[in-house]
Amino acid sequence: MATINVAMIGQGFMGRSHSNAWGQVVKFFTPPLKPVMHTVFGQPEENPQAFAERWGWQNASTNWEELVKSPEIGLVDVVTPNYMHAPVARAVIAAGKPVACEKPIAGTLEDARQMVEAAKAANVKTFVWFNYRRCPAVALAHQIVKAGEIGQIRHVRATYLQDWADESIPLLWRFEKKWAGSGAHGDLNAHIIDMTRFVTGSEIVEVAGAIAETFIKERTLPGQAATGGLGDAAASGGKGPVTV
Amino acid sequence: MATINVAMIGQGFMGRSHSNAWGQVVKFFTPPLKPVMHTVFGQPEENPQAFAERWGWQNASTNWEELVKSPEIGLVDVVTPNYMHAPVARAVIAAGKPVACEKPIAGTLEDARQMVEAAKAANVKTFVWFNYRRCPAVALAHQIVKAGEIGQIRHVRATYLQDWADESIPLLWRFEKKWAGSGAHGDLNAHIIDMTRFVTGSEIVEVAGAIAETFIKERTLPGQAATGGLGDAAASGGKGPVTV
Amino acid sequence: MATINVAMIGQGFMGRSHSNAWGQVVKFFTPPLKPVMHTVFGQPEENPQAFAERWGWQNASTNWEELVKSPEIGLVDVVTPNYMHAPVARAVIAAGKPVACEKPIAGTLEDARQMVEAAKAANVKTFVWFNYRRCPAVALAHQIVKAGEIGQIRHVRATYLQDWADESIPLLWRFEKKWAGSGAHGDLNAHIIDMTRFVTGSEIVEVAGAIAETFIKERTLPGQAATGGLGDAAASGGKGPVTV
Amino acid sequence: MATINVAMIGQGFMGRSHSNAWGQVVKFFTPPLKPVMHTVFGQPEENPQAFAERWGWQNASTNWEELVKSPEIGLVDVVTPNYMHAPVARAVIAAGKPVACEKPIAGTLEDARQMVEAAKAANVKTFVWFNYRRCPAVALAHQIVKAGEIGQIRHVRATYLQDWADESIPLLWRFEKKWAGSGAHGDLNAHIIDMTRFVTGSEIVEVAGAIAETFIKERTLPGQAATGGLGDAAASGGKGPVTV
Repeated sequence: MATINVAMIGQGFMGRSHSNAWGQVVKFFTPPLKPVMHTVFGQPEENPQAFAERWGWQNASTNWEELVKSPEIGLVDVVTPNYMHAPVARAVIAAGKPVACEKPIAGTLEDARQMVEAAKAANVKTFVWFNYRRCPAVALAHQIVKAGEIGQIRHVRATYLQDWADESIPLLWRFEKKWAGSGAHGDLNAHIIDMTRFVTGSEIVEVAGAIAETFIKERTLPGQAATGGLGDAAASGGKGPVTV
Repeated sequence: MATINVAMIGQGFMGRSHSNAWGQVVKFFTPPLKPVMHTVFGQPEENPQAFAERWGWQNASTNWEELVKSPEIGLVDVVTPNYMHAPVARAVIAAGKPVACEKPIAGTLEDARQMVEAAKAANVKTFVWFNYRRCPAVALAHQIVKAGEIGQIRHVRATYLQDWADESIPLLWRFEKKWAGSGAHGDLNAHIIDMTRFVTGSEIVEVAGAIAETFIKERTLPGQAATGGLGDAAASGGKGPVTV
Repeated sequence: MATINVAMIGQGFMGRSHSNAWGQVVKFFTPPLKPVMHTVFGQPEENPQAFAERWGWQNASTNWEELVKSPEIGLVDVVTPNYMHAPVARAVIAAGKPVACEKPIAGTLEDARQMVEAAKAANVKTFVWFNYRRCPAVALAHQIVKAGEIGQIRHVRATYLQDWADESIPLLWRFEKKWAGSGAHGDLNAHIIDMTRFVTGSEIVEVAGAIAETFIKERTLPGQAATGGLGDAAASGGKGPVTV
Repeated sequence: MATINVAMIGQGFMGRSHSNAWGQVVKFFTPPLKPVMHTVFGQPEENPQAFAERWGWQNASTNWEELVKSPEIGLVDVVTPNYMHAPVARAVIAAGKPVACEKPIAGTLEDARQMVEAAKAANVKTFVWFNYRRCPAVALAHQIVKAGEIGQIRHVRATYLQDWADESIPLLWRFEKKWAGSGAHGDLNAHIIDMTRFVTGSEIVEVAGAIAETFIKERTLPGQAATGGLGDAAASGGKGPVTV
C-alpha cells in the first residue's frame, strides 16, 4: 500500500482526536494512501516527545516552520489553537504541500479568502475538518436529500449546544480573541453552517439576524496546561476578561 | 354557586374547543363563578342551533351585535376568524362587559393598542386565550423560574411547529390576509412569545432578525364549510392566492 | 336522536372518569344511541347527590339493587371497587339489561365464567372497559397487524408500569384482597393481556412463568374518603397488612 | 512502562473488536502493564498474516496449541467461535498463563465449572469479556446503586434486542449448536445477566420461567467466509437446520 508521511502541528484536544483518527483509519477503511504518523509538533513545554510515544507518532518536533518544509513530510495537519491556523496553513501551502486544517481556518474573512487564493495559486489540495459530514446520520441525510426523496427543503433548524462553559471554567484560549479569533460562531456554528450546506446542497444567501452576547465576562486565569502552551502561568489565580 | 351567563361569538374549531372547556371547567375545578353556556352565535349558514344542541349551549343566535348587548349576558367569548376579533371585542367593551378574546386580538398593532385603551377607559376585565400557560409543563416551568431554582435565564429557544398546511390544504380563511390579518406569526408565534414572557418573567426588548416566507403561494378555493362561513362557495374549485 | 338511560354504580376515580366519558361522547362522536346520564349510585356517606350535580347526572341513588331493576334504566355501568363488580353485574344481567363492567370483572376465574354463562343465558349484551383499545396508537397497531402489514407477530413485550404505590400511600381498598380481589395482575396486567389479544388477534395458550411479590407488606390505615366508602374511619392512623 | 505480550486466538468480528481495544487502551488509559500485540492466531484459510498487518499484530500464527505455550506470550485472549472457548482456555490455564475469554466460556454448565476449578487449581488469573460493565452508563448505574442512592432494588427489567437475524441471514456458526453451543441465551442474555449482577450487587436465586423458540428453523448455507473458517464451502447454496 502506498503511504504518505503526515506531520501534525498541535497536540491539544484536537491533537489527541486526530492522532486517534490517523492511527485508526487504515484499520476500518481502505484509503488509497496509508497515512504514516511521521512527526508531531508541540511547544517544548508541552513535551511533544511524550505525546508522540503515547499516540504513536514516530517523531516529535518543536520547530513547525522547519517541519512543514521537511522533504520527509507529504501532508500537514493543522490542529493548533485558532490564531495559528492561518499562518501554519499558509506556510504549508507555500511549501507546496497538501494541508488539512481545523476550523475556523482564519480569524477574519479576509485572511480566509487569501488562504483560498494562495492554495489555488500554488495548486495544493486543501481540506477543512468539518468532520460531522462523516457522522452516519448526517451522511445519510445528505444522501436522502440528494436523491430527492424528501422533495424541496424549505427550512433547516440547526443549533449547536454545548454546556461545558459555565462559571467554573477558567480563561482557556478559546475565550480570548487573540488566540481564538472568534467565539462560538467560529468554533461551533461553523459546523452547523457546513452541515446545512452539505445536507441541503444549497448556499446561504442572506443573514436575517444575529446575536452575540457574552454572559460570563470574566474568568479565572488558568495554569499553563489548560491553555495549549499559551497561558501565563505566573498570572494563574487572577481574573481575565473574556474577549470573544 | 354563583353563576355567570356566557355568550360565545363564533363556532369553528375554536368554538368547539371553547365549548368543551366551558362545559368541563366546573367538573375538574371549582371556580368562584360557574359559567352558564347561555348563547352561541354563528352565521345562519353555519346552523348555530345544531351547534348549540351538540355542544350544550342553551340558545343560539345569528345577531352578535344584539347578543353582546343583551342584559342576559355577563361575559363574551370571542372565537371568530381573526378579522372579527377586534370589532366584536370593542363592542363587548362598549357594552361594559368582560371579554375573553382569542389571539391575535387584532390585525395591526394600532388596533390592539386602541383595544387596550378602550378596555382601560371602560374599566372592563379582559382576557386573551393564551391557553398554554395552563399546560402543566409550562405552568411548572413558570413556577420553577419564579422560585429562582434555575438561576438567571440566558437563552430561550422557542419554535412552534405544525405540519398540516401542505399543498393539499385549500385556501382556508387562515391563508387570506383580509380574514386572518397575519399568518403564522400572529397565529402560532403569538403563543411562544407569550410563553416566553410567562415563563421567564422578562419582556422582549429587541428583535434581531425575522424572516417571513410563504412557500405555497396559491391554494385551491374551498367550499364554504371550510371557511367559517366566509368562503365564496360558487368559486370552489378554482385557485386563489395565499396572502399571509 | 334515540336515547338510552344510563345508571352508573360507583363514584370513585373511575366514577369521575366514566361520568366525563358519558358526558363527552355525543360531542365528539355520533353514536347510534345518545346516552342520558340518568342516575348515579353512591354510598350515603359518599354524598352521591353532590357527585350527580358536579358531573351532570340527573338523579342520585343510594340503593343499587333497586336502581338496576328500575324500568327507567336501559344500561348499567359498574365502576365500584372490584369486589362488587360481580354481584352488581349479575344483578344487571338478572334484570335483563346490558351491563358495562370495569375490569377485573370478578375476583376468581370461576366467578368470571359464571358471569359469562349468565349473560349468555339471559341474552344480554355485555362490555368490559378495556379502554386502551380506543387509544389511537393501540387502535392503529390493531389495524396494521390485521392488514398484514408487518407479517407474522413473533414477540410481544408488554409491561404496565405505574409508580404511585410507594410507602407513602395508605391501605387503599386496592391493597386489600377482600375488596380488590387481586393486585396488579388483575388491575393493570388485565389491560396488557387484553391489548395483546386485541393487537395480535391471537390468544395466549401457555403461561411459562409468573412472579408475584408484595414489597410493601403493611400500610397506614386511611380515612374513609380514600377507600371508596369501604374504610373503617375509626381505625385511621394504625397499620394494616397488604393482602394482594 | 512494563509490558505484557498478548496472543489472540481467533480473528472474526470479535477478533477485530479486541484488536482495536488492545491497540487503543494505552492511548486513553494508563494501565499498570502495557499490552504488546504480539501474535494473532487464525486458520490458514483466514489469512492471519493479512489480519496481523491490518490490525497491528507483530506476528501471525496458525498453530494455537504451540502459541499458548510459547514462552514469549504472557496473556492469551480467546475470541474464537464458541465451541473453542473451553478447549483453548483450558490449554492456557494448563500453560499457567492468565486467560481472557469471550462469553459464553463454555457450552455446558459442567464445562464451565471445570474451567473455574482448573483455573483455581493452577492459580491463574481469568477474565470473561463482559464488556458492558465499562459502558459509562452501566458503570454509573453500578456506582449509584453501590452508594445506596436509590435504596433497595426491587425490580430489574432487562432485554437484549438485536435485529440482524432475519430470514436473509445464512446459517452462520452462531446458528449451529456444534459451533455455538447455545443461542441467544448464551450469546446475548449472558450480558444482561452479568449486568444485572454487576449493577445490583445481587445474585439471581430462582428462575421463574423461560421460553426458547427458534422462529427461523432453516437457513441458507453460507460460503466459508461467513463462518469463521468453519463452513463447508462446497455446500454453499443449500439449506441447513438452525440448531440453537
